[in-house]
Amino acid sequence: MNERFSARLNTRDGAVDMTHGSGGRAMAQLIEELFVAHFDNDLLRQANDQAAFDLPAGRVVMSTDGHVISPLFFPGGDIGSLSVHGTINDVAMSGARPLYLAAGFILEEGFPLADLERVVASMARAASAAGVPVVTGDTKVVEQGKGDGIFITTTGIGVVPNGVEVSGDRARPGDVVLVSGTLGDHGVAIMSSRENLTFETAIESDSAALHTLVADMVAAAPGIRCLRDPTRGGLATTLNELARQSGVGMKLMERDIPVNPAVSAACELLGLDPLYVANEGKLICICGPEDAEPLLEAMRAHPLGRAAARIGEVVEDRHGFVQMETGFGGSRVVDWLAGEQLPRIC
Amino acid sequence: MNERFSARLNTRDGAVDMTHGSGGRAMAQLIEELFVAHFDNDLLRQANDQAAFDLPAGRVVMSTDGHVISPLFFPGGDIGSLSVHGTINDVAMSGARPLYLAAGFILEEGFPLADLERVVASMARAASAAGVPVVTGDTKVVEQGKGDGIFITTTGIGVVPNGVEVSGDRARPGDVVLVSGTLGDHGVAIMSSRENLTFETAIESDSAALHTLVADMVAAAPGIRCLRDPTRGGLATTLNELARQSGVGMKLMERDIPVNPAVSAACELLGLDPLYVANEGKLICICGPEDAEPLLEAMRAHPLGRAAARIGEVVEDRHGFVQMETGFGGSRVVDWLAGEQLPRIC
Repeated sequence: MNERFSARLNTRDGAVDMTHGSGGRAMAQLIEELFVAHFDNDLLRQANDQAAFDLPAGRVVMSTDGHVISPLFFPGGDIGSLSVHGTINDVAMSGARPLYLAAGFILEEGFPLADLERVVASMARAASAAGVPVVTGDTKVVEQGKGDGIFITTTGIGVVPNGVEVSGDRARPGDVVLVSGTLGDHGVAIMSSRENLTFETAIESDSAALHTLVADMVAAAPGIRCLRDPTRGGLATTLNELARQSGVGMKLMERDIPVNPAVSAACELLGLDPLYVANEGKLICICGPEDAEPLLEAMRAHPLGRAAARIGEVVEDRHGFVQMETGFGGSRVVDWLAGEQLPRIC
Repeated sequence: MNERFSARLNTRDGAVDMTHGSGGRAMAQLIEELFVAHFDNDLLRQANDQAAFDLPAGRVVMSTDGHVISPLFFPGGDIGSLSVHGTINDVAMSGARPLYLAAGFILEEGFPLADLERVVASMARAASAAGVPVVTGDTKVVEQGKGDGIFITTTGIGVVPNGVEVSGDRARPGDVVLVSGTLGDHGVAIMSSRENLTFETAIESDSAALHTLVADMVAAAPGIRCLRDPTRGGLATTLNELARQSGVGMKLMERDIPVNPAVSAACELLGLDPLYVANEGKLICICGPEDAEPLLEAMRAHPLGRAAARIGEVVEDRHGFVQMETGFGGSRVVDWLAGEQLPRIC
């Protein structure tokens, strides 16, 4: 096949140029020698402009997410693995089993092909580890100064098992609020990496695909009301969204919210509140009180839910306030994120 | 609901700022007052991070496409309508009926909210006219100088009717090559708009959603072998892709290839070959000889296929060459697009 191209793609010291987005021979080579080589699956290899497949019975779920994180490579991951985990998680938060991914790349002219290959290899590893292949894609190139290296928009589809009805508007007074682990790790890892800070304990992004954790949770308690991953805006903003969607209030116990001590210390140093810092491998679950213990048990039995905790409850409040009982016995309102705390965190 | 925001989004002279991508209150307002207001459908209004729906029986098709066109507004369309048409067409080229769209926006800080609203309103009109709603989305913001106003990645899903098997690897010697209309309109409209050229006859992009044309064609001849829209790289590159996928050659008749005379003239002026210029509302169809007439009839009966023509045939050729009998009776090889003819054409 490679007789078509005069030389192999130079992934050692070559760079993206405008021809890689032209639709012509250079783009065909980039797709064949880089994308198809790494993602390596039959659907992609068909080389049609779309992927076709059969789906199991059930409601279908679709979610899309652009990734513009800076820096591209950070402790615990990179834009490639993040773009796979982020979209798998958005699909999984409906209770669905994620099945296929599509990836749209917007590359900046001059972006090193070595970095592109590193990103694509990382995406491929993340997709393969999760069992959710990238089956179709698209590449565009913009002139130098009109982009920032690489942006990746991933779209995922999945299928919800029958009987599962997870939605942000289903929280009811008396329900329990659970979180799958420590908060703030992703945002603090990115900020430390940007500011070149080092701490005694290395802080890594928690970036991870949560769909197998969700599957275990759905099996333990099919009546789960809400699931959501607290990414941009953190726990605080995500709980405010859920409170608003469901028309309820929430009451949190500060002392029960798990935060890694190194993240706590870094947040103090950086002037951040861990409740507003992005996570990429955590979920919030709201469930009826009878499901709380079985769910915590299922979560703690999964590697990504070891530090799962019950952090509060849903209360009646038509204003949708999220309140928190602080460590000192006082109470404060936990509002939406107002400004921009951490730009380009995902 | 709007008690949450101190004032309405200023879509008259406001601009995108970093808070619109923060995940917090400003992003919630942008989503509610701009995206949800225009796209206006129940799935989007649920405000979950994903859309859930039932699909009719059949093979499911997914396709994704990034849009980085410059300029954003051009004769015959804009990045918004293009991003809807382009993805609907990629889904439809499998013979599928497109059903739902997801849209990922990457906005540059400082982009006027008035332009954003104009783009989103245009997307919404295109989606509504096509009957394919935008049901989920995502917004990211990058700093000034790290993007170019707006990039839109749309992903579509659809379902292939039973019995339809369209794929780029199904062309066989003896098959007929059809095209749905004149070539080069989109690329020449964009180039003229960039170069500020005016012609006696206005040249407009052919940007259009082709799914109803495809549905009519599939009904007329369910055995259609290949469908593809000749976007980047034009007719020449698309036929080379199909020839390579199917392991066949093609023989075109130059005099049968429809080109709008104004486009022909503009191509001469701009030094372009219409066979390599992008189209956004045309399709190539390869079919068995017995299906050619019924298909041409169905195409010509549809507003987007009036100028449909038979332009060549599939021949045996293990090298996958596309050859063309020229107007002067000679013959030349129509190769892949080699360099970059028209950057950022879609």
